[in-house]
Amino acid sequence: MADSAFAPRPTSWYAWLRDSVDGLVRRSPSRFAILVFTALVMVFTLLFSLPISTVDRTVTPLHDALFTAVSVICVTGLATVDMATHWSAFGNVLVVVGVNIGGVGVLTLASLMGMVISRRLGLRARLMAASDTNPSRIHAGPVNEGQAIRLGEVGNLLVTVAISALVIELVVTALIFPRILAVGTPTGEALWQSVYYAAMAFTNSGFSPNVGGLTPFAGDYWFLSSLMMGAFLGSLGFPVIYTLARGWRSPRRWSLHVKLTLFTTMALLVVGVALYLVLEFDNPKTFGSLSAGDAIFQSLFLSVMTRSGGFATFNISDLNGASLLATDMLMFIGGGSASTAGGIKVTTLAILFLAAFAEAGGRTQMEAFGRRIPGDILRLAVSVVLWGATTVAVSSILILQISQAPLDLVLFDVISAFATCGLSTGLTGELPPAGVYVLAATMFMGRIGTVTLAAALAASQSRQLFSRPEERPIVG
Amino acid sequence: MADSAFAPRPTSWYAWLRDSVDGLVRRSPSRFAILVFTALVMVFTLLFSLPISTVDRTVTPLHDALFTAVSVICVTGLATVDMATHWSAFGNVLVVVGVNIGGVGVLTLASLMGMVISRRLGLRARLMAASDTNPSRIHAGPVNEGQAIRLGEVGNLLVTVAISALVIELVVTALIFPRILAVGTPTGEALWQSVYYAAMAFTNSGFSPNVGGLTPFAGDYWFLSSLMMGAFLGSLGFPVIYTLARGWRSPRRWSLHVKLTLFTTMALLVVGVALYLVLEFDNPKTFGSLSAGDAIFQSLFLSVMTRSGGFATFNISDLNGASLLATDMLMFIGGGSASTAGGIKVTTLAILFLAAFAEAGGRTQMEAFGRRIPGDILRLAVSVVLWGATTVAVSSILILQISQAPLDLVLFDVISAFATCGLSTGLTGELPPAGVYVLAATMFMGRIGTVTLAAALAASQSRQLFSRPEERPIVG
Ligand SMILES: [K+]
Ligand SMILES: [K+]
Repeated sequence: MADSAFAPRPTSWYAWLRDSVDGLVRRSPSRFAILVFTALVMVFTLLFSLPISTVDRTVTPLHDALFTAVSVICVTGLATVDMATHWSAFGNVLVVVGVNIGGVGVLTLASLMGMVISRRLGLRARLMAASDTNPSRIHAGPVNEGQAIRLGEVGNLLVTVAISALVIELVVTALIFPRILAVGTPTGEALWQSVYYAAMAFTNSGFSPNVGGLTPFAGDYWFLSSLMMGAFLGSLGFPVIYTLARGWRSPRRWSLHVKLTLFTTMALLVVGVALYLVLEFDNPKTFGSLSAGDAIFQSLFLSVMTRSGGFATFNISDLNGASLLATDMLMFIGGGSASTAGGIKVTTLAILFLAAFAEAGGRTQMEAFGRRIPGDILRLAVSVVLWGATTVAVSSILILQISQAPLDLVLFDVISAFATCGLSTGLTGELPPAGVYVLAATMFMGRIGTVTLAAALAASQSRQLFSRPEERPIVG
Repeated sequence: MADSAFAPRPTSWYAWLRDSVDGLVRRSPSRFAILVFTALVMVFTLLFSLPISTVDRTVTPLHDALFTAVSVICVTGLATVDMATHWSAFGNVLVVVGVNIGGVGVLTLASLMGMVISRRLGLRARLMAASDTNPSRIHAGPVNEGQAIRLGEVGNLLVTVAISALVIELVVTALIFPRILAVGTPTGEALWQSVYYAAMAFTNSGFSPNVGGLTPFAGDYWFLSSLMMGAFLGSLGFPVIYTLARGWRSPRRWSLHVKLTLFTTMALLVVGVALYLVLEFDNPKTFGSLSAGDAIFQSLFLSVMTRSGGFATFNISDLNGASLLATDMLMFIGGGSASTAGGIKVTTLAILFLAAFAEAGGRTQMEAFGRRIPGDILRLAVSVVLWGATTVAVSSILILQISQAPLDLVLFDVISAFATCGLSTGLTGELPPAGVYVLAATMFMGRIGTVTLAAALAASQSRQLFSRPEERPIVG
C-alpha cells in the first residue's frame, strides 16, 4: 500500500499494462509463467487441430494436436505424428514459431524470475551483509546485475534474449544452408530447412523438417557440428550466453553460476562420451562398425544432445540397455538454468554434489570456486530433484500400466519428456491416447515445473519470528 | 594426548582390549565397521567353501560362496544357489548364525556410531546451547540418552541389542512352530524351520529353509502375520524398538527420530498397499483371482516385505511392470536407521521431504513434530541418497552390460541387493560369475555404505576458521 502511494501514476494504457504485468510478475512470477504457458498450449492446440495445418486438410485428433502443441511450446521434440509429412506449410510455420516462442519465452521468464528472486533475496542478503564486515560478499556478475534491473523493463530483457536467439539461429542457418543444398535439396526448400533446423538446434527442440531426419547428414560433420553448437549454446542458458558474449576474455569475473554451469556441463559431456564409447564400441547396430574417430564424434554428438537437444543420428532403440540407462540419467540432469534445455538443471546436480563434498570434508558450508553457497540453495535443489523424481515416477508407473511396454522403453521416453529432451525409443509414437495425455502432462510438468517451482519456492522465503527446540534424527 | 594422560591406566588384557576397540571406534567408527564386516565376509566365504557345508560334500565355487557369505552377513536374502537344497546342516547353521551376527552386529554398530556421533555433536550442541537461552533445546530421548553412554560400555549395548533380538526371535519361533507342524513337517525339522524362519524374519534376511519357500504357507495368515511382525520390528531399528519397549505408553516423550521413523514407515506401508491393490487387482497371475480381503492382506505382506524383509508369497516376476517399479522405489527407501533393514532409510527420505516442505512454506528451518531439524542433517541425507543413487546406477549399468537382461529385471535385483531386501525376479540366480561379483559388491556397499557413510560424514564435522564470500547460483 505504502509502495503504490509512492509509485508514479500510470499515464497511458501501455504503462497500465506494463504495471499490471509488473504487478502479477512481482506478486507471483510462477503463477504468471504457468498462465502464459497454459494459454500458449491452448492456442497452439487449436491451431494444430485446424485442417489448414495438415497436408491432407483433415482435423488432427485432439490428443495428437495437444501433444504436438505441448511438445512445440515446451521445446521437447517428441511426436505422435510424423512431423515431416503430417503438417502443411502453415503447420510447419506454427512449429518453428512455436518453438521460438516457447524456447525464448521460457528463457526470458526464467531469467526474469531469477532476477526477481535475486532482487528479493538480494535485499535480504544486503540486510545481512550490513551486519557483516566482509565487503567482498557483494560482487559483480550477471545474476547480481539482475538485481538492479527494474521489473518494468521486462521488454528490454525480452529484446536482449530475442536478439541473442536470432543471432545464434542466423549463424547456424548460414552454416548449414550449403550442406543441405549439397544433398540435392532445391534452394527454396533448403533455405526453409536451414531455418527450421537452426531454430530446432538453438531452442533444443529436435524436430526434423525432412523425411528421414538426420539420416542424410549422419556423416556430415560440418552440419552435425553446427547443430551441436546451436544446441549447446541454447542449453547453457541466457545468463551464461550473456556473460560469454560480454566477457569471455575475463573468466575471473564470471559469476559462480556461470562457472558452475560450464564446469558441470563439460564434466557431463566427458562422462557421456566415455560411457557411450565403452558401452557401445562393440555394438554392431551403433558404433561397432565405426572408426575410432567416428565413434568419438558420434559419442560427442549424442552426449551433447542428451543435454536436451534431442537429435540422433541412429535409432535410439539400437543402443544397449546400459547406454539407455546412462542416457536416462544424463537427460534427467538436463541443461543450464534459464535455458532452452530441460531437466533438473546442471547447477542443481552440482549443488547436491557440493553438499556431499562439504559433508565429506567436514565443512559446514558448501563451497565452489572460492565462494560460499548459502544453505537454502540446497533445500531448493532438493525440492527440484524431488519434484523431478516424483513426476518421472508417477508418469512411468502410469505409462507402464497403460502400455504394458518394457521398462527400458517407458523410462527412456518418460524421462525424455520430463527433461524435454525429445530422444525417443519409438514408444511415444505407439502410445494409446491415454498414454499420450500422460506424456503431454509430463512434458508440461517438466518444462514449467522445475523453473516455476524453483522460482515460487525461492520467492516465498519469509522471516521466522520464533524458533522451535532443535533435535537431530538419525539418517542413513 | 592430554586425554590419554588423564585416562585411567588399563589394569588387565580385557581392559587393554576394551580400550583398544574403544580407541578405534572413537577415532574412526566407520573404518572399524568396515574392518569388522570385511573380516566376517572373508571368514564366512571360507566356511561356505568347505565341503562340509554342502549336502553333496563338494567345494562351492568362490563366486557362489562369496555371494552367499555377503548375502548372509549383509542380511540380504538373495541367492545364487538353492538355499533349501545346496547347504548341509552345518551350512544351514552357518546361515542362521551369520544372519544373526550380521543383523544384530550392524544394529549394534549403527546404534553405537549413532551414539558416538550424538555425543560428539552433542558436545557441539551443548556448546552452542550455552549461548542459547532456550532450555528446551536439551531434551530427553533414546538418542540423547546415548550421549551419556560410555564407549567402553560397547558390551552392555551389544547385550541389550542381543537380548532384544533373542526375545523377538523366540516369540516368533513359538508363534510359527505349530503352523509348520500343521503342514506335516516332522517335529525336529519343524522346530529347526521355526528357528530359521524367526531369525530370517527379525534380521530381515528372507531366506527359506524348505523347498518351495513360503508356498505351503501362502494362505496361512497366522504364519505370515508372525513373519511380518518379526520383519517389521527388525526394520524399525534398535532406537525405536528400545523406545517402544520402555515407553510405548507415553508417545509424547518419544524422540523425534522415533516419531519420524514410525510416521514415515506407516505412510510407506499405506502407499505400498494402495499401489499394489490398484496396479495388481486385475493381474490373473497375482491378485486377480483373490477375494478383496485376501488381496489386501497379500498387498500388506508385500508392502511390509519391501522395507527389507524379502519374503514373497508368489513369483515377483509375475508382477506388472508398474508394480515392479513401485517396488524398486519402496525397496530403495528401505527401513529405519540402526535396523536390520537396508536402503537409504525412512528418516533420510523424510528429511528430503521436510526440506521441500520448508521451502514451500517459506521457512528457513526444517520442522517436524514441533522440533527444528538442523540444516547439516539435510546435507547428510543428500550425501546418503547420492551414495545410494550412484551405487545403484553403476551396478545397474554393469549388470545390464554383463547380462544384456531387460532393465526391469536388472533394476529390481540391483536395488534389492543395494537395499539388502532380497526379493528377486529370478535374475540373480542366472547371472554369470562377473555379475555375481558386481551384485555382491552392491550388497556390501548398500549395507555397510549408507550406515558408515552417514557416521563417517557426521563424525568429521570440523569448525571452519575462515569464511568465503557468499554467492547464489540459480537452480531448477
Ligand atoms: K528437446
Ligand atoms: K533382506
